[in-house]
Amino acid sequence: MKWNNLDTLEAYRNLASDSHHADLKKELGGADGAQRVAKYQVNMAAGLSYNYAAKAVDDTILKDLCALAEEAELADKFAELYNGAVINTGEKRLVLHQLTRGQLGGPVTADGTDKRAFYAEQQRKIAEFAAKVHNGAIVNEKGEKFTTAVQIGIGGSDLGPRAMYLALENWARKNGCFRMEARFISNVDPDDVASVLGTIDPSRSIFILVSKSGTTLETLTNESFVKDALKNDGLDPSKHMIAVTSETSPLAKSSDYLAAFFMDDYIGGRYSSTSAVGGAVLSLAFGPEVFARFLEGAAEEDRLSTEKDPLRNPAMLDALIGVYERNILGWPCTAVLPYSQALSRFPAHLQQLDMESNGKSVNRFGEPVHYPTGPVIFGEPGTNGQHSFYQLLHQGTDIIPLQFIGFRSNQAGMDVVIQGSTSQQKLCANVAAQIMAFACGKDDENRNKYFAGCRPSSIIVGDQLTPEALGALLSHFENKVMFQGFIWNLNSFDQEGVQLGKVLAKKVLAHETDGALKAFSDLLNI
Amino acid sequence: MKWNNLDTLEAYRNLASDSHHADLKKELGGADGAQRVAKYQVNMAAGLSYNYAAKAVDDTILKDLCALAEEAELADKFAELYNGAVINTGEKRLVLHQLTRGQLGGPVTADGTDKRAFYAEQQRKIAEFAAKVHNGAIVNEKGEKFTTAVQIGIGGSDLGPRAMYLALENWARKNGCFRMEARFISNVDPDDVASVLGTIDPSRSIFILVSKSGTTLETLTNESFVKDALKNDGLDPSKHMIAVTSETSPLAKSSDYLAAFFMDDYIGGRYSSTSAVGGAVLSLAFGPEVFARFLEGAAEEDRLSTEKDPLRNPAMLDALIGVYERNILGWPCTAVLPYSQALSRFPAHLQQLDMESNGKSVNRFGEPVHYPTGPVIFGEPGTNGQHSFYQLLHQGTDIIPLQFIGFRSNQAGMDVVIQGSTSQQKLCANVAAQIMAFACGKDDENRNKYFAGCRPSSIIVGDQLTPEALGALLSHFENKVMFQGFIWNLNSFDQEGVQLGKVLAKKVLAHETDGALKAFSDLLNI
Repeated sequence: MKWNNLDTLEAYRNLASDSHHADLKKELGGADGAQRVAKYQVNMAAGLSYNYAAKAVDDTILKDLCALAEEAELADKFAELYNGAVINTGEKRLVLHQLTRGQLGGPVTADGTDKRAFYAEQQRKIAEFAAKVHNGAIVNEKGEKFTTAVQIGIGGSDLGPRAMYLALENWARKNGCFRMEARFISNVDPDDVASVLGTIDPSRSIFILVSKSGTTLETLTNESFVKDALKNDGLDPSKHMIAVTSETSPLAKSSDYLAAFFMDDYIGGRYSSTSAVGGAVLSLAFGPEVFARFLEGAAEEDRLSTEKDPLRNPAMLDALIGVYERNILGWPCTAVLPYSQALSRFPAHLQQLDMESNGKSVNRFGEPVHYPTGPVIFGEPGTNGQHSFYQLLHQGTDIIPLQFIGFRSNQAGMDVVIQGSTSQQKLCANVAAQIMAFACGKDDENRNKYFAGCRPSSIIVGDQLTPEALGALLSHFENKVMFQGFIWNLNSFDQEGVQLGKVLAKKVLAHETDGALKAFSDLLNI
Repeated sequence: MKWNNLDTLEAYRNLASDSHHADLKKELGGADGAQRVAKYQVNMAAGLSYNYAAKAVDDTILKDLCALAEEAELADKFAELYNGAVINTGEKRLVLHQLTRGQLGGPVTADGTDKRAFYAEQQRKIAEFAAKVHNGAIVNEKGEKFTTAVQIGIGGSDLGPRAMYLALENWARKNGCFRMEARFISNVDPDDVASVLGTIDPSRSIFILVSKSGTTLETLTNESFVKDALKNDGLDPSKHMIAVTSETSPLAKSSDYLAAFFMDDYIGGRYSSTSAVGGAVLSLAFGPEVFARFLEGAAEEDRLSTEKDPLRNPAMLDALIGVYERNILGWPCTAVLPYSQALSRFPAHLQQLDMESNGKSVNRFGEPVHYPTGPVIFGEPGTNGQHSFYQLLHQGTDIIPLQFIGFRSNQAGMDVVIQGSTSQQKLCANVAAQIMAFACGKDDENRNKYFAGCRPSSIIVGDQLTPEALGALLSHFENKVMFQGFIWNLNSFDQEGVQLGKVLAKKVLAHETDGALKAFSDLLNI
């Protein structure tokens, strides 16, 4: 396996030296536009498809990108990863989040155990626990059923599980799978936990403490806040709390918890939605069967990501096009625009997933790279965004590549006809219209009403946002980010950039500061 | 008044030709760092202050920026605006959102009325209505008090009011001002309205329909959905709905509503939080007195924004530094990072405010400009973001300027001591630490643990997020965006970029499409 910087690859130099650019306006706006929409599409899992007809590529550029995939050995590197190589070079760890949802390669053994068996065992334990909560075998001090699950975690222990919960909440209500409401406490700002506690019944709540190390300061602080509140209400915290942590953490065998479920060092926080980190809260909220379906969707998409040919591997293709936009076309941001209110926090999850994984300036050997890496990721659901920041996307001075997501049917199954169409039809019509408006623009003598076009987008389309579709979506982006990390020759699985702030914050709290840091601390009255 | 493009201004050319750059690491990291923190600070309203000690500026650059402010006639242009000139040249309209909270200049007359009196009258009517709802003079069909206010609106009728509501919800609960819960329906995705209706008691809810024109398709669609749901529950929609609209809209005098409150064409949606658009929902939720305090904070900050000297005008200074970062230093994004969970949706509001106002490629005369204008705005609350995208902010290949916001005290007044400090102290210690980590970085032989520093930020600091402080914050950013629009010579008050998508969506719904647009419509099953 060769781990080389992007700018040393022949295929990349070919791509960079090619003065030819695809003219999206012509490619999509012309008579062959419909054919292009049909051709530039690849199937994903769970009935989804990835359509890149509105991306600024053509057959020549795609050929170059395929050559890049081959020279960068993307499929082989993924195989190394899922077969248990130490891909996280910084922390010297395996990278096994795909293993939480299926066996892609041979058995992976670490710490003396078969890791697939370990993850499956945690899922089984969680399923058993959730079933007991649902059927009343595990109840509160008064013998009442629990009605609310409250996740206490931050970063990867919060954003992914929260986004997944919101994505499936209405689907579960509609399909008779809604078991318990879930709430989330993350910020060390005490107003966050106070606000959640003020709007739930703590006596009927199970709190899920999530911290891999068992030492995350925000999470321990919020746990303590919750414990005090429970005690003040005359409740026994150990009857209301479970832990999701690593087996070696101080939380693992504590009698403070009803139960503990395990993840390990091979699951990065931002990749942990399919591990016990997402498993506990989603199984409690929607039942273990729904969580299992979510994992199946992710596993099916993972299998597609093993395909060597980028034109048949949507995550790899998406990654390659993204690198083309970032490194050849020079665009520094990507907007994620789901036309689904259920995906309202999915962009925030992708923001962490992508920016924390690939927002780096050194390669996997710790050497500085001399090309742009991970872009800024932001987004809000459509059609909301259309009435907000789309102005800049259409007519601003910079080009922002766009990632649309859309579904033919909504989740709740309720709708209304106004002016001859349903809400769902309006929603879908808007995303189709936006793709074309961005790609082809509009001439107008009044320059204020002129749209330059050539603003590229792709869209992932599905029938409905089901657990399987959500799993496939999640896996698609996880694998896209992984492939981009391979192309940029980064270690996408550590996060050294978050350490310095922690160290300085401790100094501030210990009053071991001087100069400007002391002045800022004084300003904030610490 | 001279309305000239930025690149024609002498002060800008001076700034651009100056090869001198401030070395933030030296400026802030050295022995004089504490002095700089004290010096580079300007008072805002409501006890807030704007600190720019961690921005990449020094006295020389600030002098150039002051010259730019003078040559661009920023203070004079603001005076033109608040005295009622037609500043929105595209739509040929006055721009009067500041007038909703106070009289900055002479009387402004339009459509035959004194506009200050008009806005004050709407506030008075809203206050009267809210009082009747609160004291039970206006009740539902069964004579029960209303418990929930549901805003139906999108874009500016949603993001600002929603962010303001969330910002004050806990404060109001703590301070005995919490009158009614507010909820928001915005997306045309029918799952949005279904989800809200599924978790409220419609029989105890007042729905606030907000659309200036009375024709916003999303809003009318959601209104219809809600009316059907009310009728299905045997309720009379006209007893549950009020309208916020313009006097000339079809909604204004309809008998379908309990009451109608008015805004007008001189209040852009994204600037409407201090008009009836924010006034109705905030007065219902927290009482008219709280809304009045919010307006006072905004008015006080507006008065500071009239100051000619940028060093005593925080909004103007913030605008100038932002232009320096965008046009001289070439940075295309800005992250907004409030260390306050209550401000969780404030970045989304600023995203609209900024990107919709200044995401433009033509000047106010419709001529193309040849310099970058409005940046991409994104953000999430701290400390959450620290465990997410901060990796890229610290160690990514691009520099992203940062806007921190912090408060010395939290809102709920509850806290817990862990490891020797409260949550609030941890929160504040983190923001102080982050500012310094970004500015000064850290050397390390292990390049993976190396922080380059020189990543600039500013911070707005206050004692507590009160209604006045929130008003001041809102006004600060509105006026910053306005000043940047003046500097870039844009019309910050229209949004032609949102039109093309609407036109194409109508074609899709009417099945009047061919080529790629038809193909995308088919893909989405419309």
